[in-house]
Amino acid sequence: MNETLSVLMNHKSIRKFKEDEVSQQQLASIVAAAQMASSSSNVQAYSVIAVTEPGLKKQLAALAGGQAYVEQCPVFLVWCADLYRLKRVTEQHKPDQTSYEDSTENFIVATIDAALAAQNAAIAAESMGLGIVYIGGIRNNIAEVAELLGLPELVYPVFGMCVGVPDQEPGLRPRLPQAAVLHMNGYDPNQTMEQVKLYDETMSRYLSERTGGERTTPWSEIMAVRLTEPVRLHMKSFLEQKGFLKQ
Amino acid sequence: MNETLSVLMNHKSIRKFKEDEVSQQQLASIVAAAQMASSSSNVQAYSVIAVTEPGLKKQLAALAGGQAYVEQCPVFLVWCADLYRLKRVTEQHKPDQTSYEDSTENFIVATIDAALAAQNAAIAAESMGLGIVYIGGIRNNIAEVAELLGLPELVYPVFGMCVGVPDQEPGLRPRLPQAAVLHMNGYDPNQTMEQVKLYDETMSRYLSERTGGERTTPWSEIMAVRLTEPVRLHMKSFLEQKGFLKQ
Repeated sequence: MNETLSVLMNHKSIRKFKEDEVSQQQLASIVAAAQMASSSSNVQAYSVIAVTEPGLKKQLAALAGGQAYVEQCPVFLVWCADLYRLKRVTEQHKPDQTSYEDSTENFIVATIDAALAAQNAAIAAESMGLGIVYIGGIRNNIAEVAELLGLPELVYPVFGMCVGVPDQEPGLRPRLPQAAVLHMNGYDPNQTMEQVKLYDETMSRYLSERTGGERTTPWSEIMAVRLTEPVRLHMKSFLEQKGFLKQ
Repeated sequence: MNETLSVLMNHKSIRKFKEDEVSQQQLASIVAAAQMASSSSNVQAYSVIAVTEPGLKKQLAALAGGQAYVEQCPVFLVWCADLYRLKRVTEQHKPDQTSYEDSTENFIVATIDAALAAQNAAIAAESMGLGIVYIGGIRNNIAEVAELLGLPELVYPVFGMCVGVPDQEPGLRPRLPQAAVLHMNGYDPNQTMEQVKLYDETMSRYLSERTGGERTTPWSEIMAVRLTEPVRLHMKSFLEQKGFLKQ
């Protein structure tokens, strides 16, 4: 196994950070790595807001549902899908033409661009001994987050990411068996559902070990609870208000 | 710069591959690395179809708009957002409850999960000396691609990815200046638009050098052309038919 594979295979989300700073140079390297990710037709339809101001981090932590590590980490990155730049240059070059920044396709392109860049950033940070955790919680109060960060139309915060020096050493969380997610030459529904049963056993044991036998809920049941919760149903109207997903 | 940063900083999309195989072991390592990416609440809402059958690759190459390298590469990975697994376990555990697999939020979660996993796979492949290119073109005829791969409801192909041994050495493509995508403590529209002007000059020179002075179109103009093209406007209705994005 090469060094890079070792970094990839040892990812654990970090939720407790030391007080050490992330230096300007580290931040620049992390974002430079993010920028080298692939981008659909080179549109580079993403932006990242690095939040270092304590007051701002505190507000974001509250908006994300009271996640203390958002406030505690030295740098909180907010990864945004960004079609604003493209819209502006289109107005400059093609002022009289219809443009499609509101299409579902371009929404997907921008969301993917943000995600690919962010994952490169995560790997870069981890390769330097830093730890990260993705924060989907910033979508809990997404309108307030967007306002706080001054996001213009056609920019939405996809997720946040805490970055800092780890102050904990969590174990690796088992993933689904490979055969549950990898299909050869075509999707096999039975294969994936068979593998879920095996994963349920793995995760029951894992939970039990971590909680001294207190919790053993199988993964599939946790997922069923999650999918029956009305999570962030405001997303569609928020995105439409921001100019996305109209067609 | 550590070895992993070096892999990240040297990414180039590869569109010409040698005939060498990608071994089963390499594929297993690539997908194992993909699986270690973060996933929102551990939902792991993605799947990947590894296409190795020549006839199937040929059909996918045609559907992606005649991209020869889709046929030529030894393994073509189709990364899918997948809420089917979650829907099935929810039907098992909570048969009588309303579930939200059709929410915009869960569509975003699944799309991000697929993208983060894919980017880990890309880095893993590159760390092993393989080359990759993302293929958004599979969304050109997405319904046909989904049918060909037997994708059930609530699974959609986000993008493809050619993997193989590189048979070309393209140069690095310049990215936007870092100040165009990185904002400190809040979004600065003027900063990003100023930086676009600098990038236009960089990319004009880059294009000119690559085409012997034949093409010099600035990036912003290429983007304006792209945004005024009605690209893949079928995405919304396709996704709704597949059970996504209904609320």
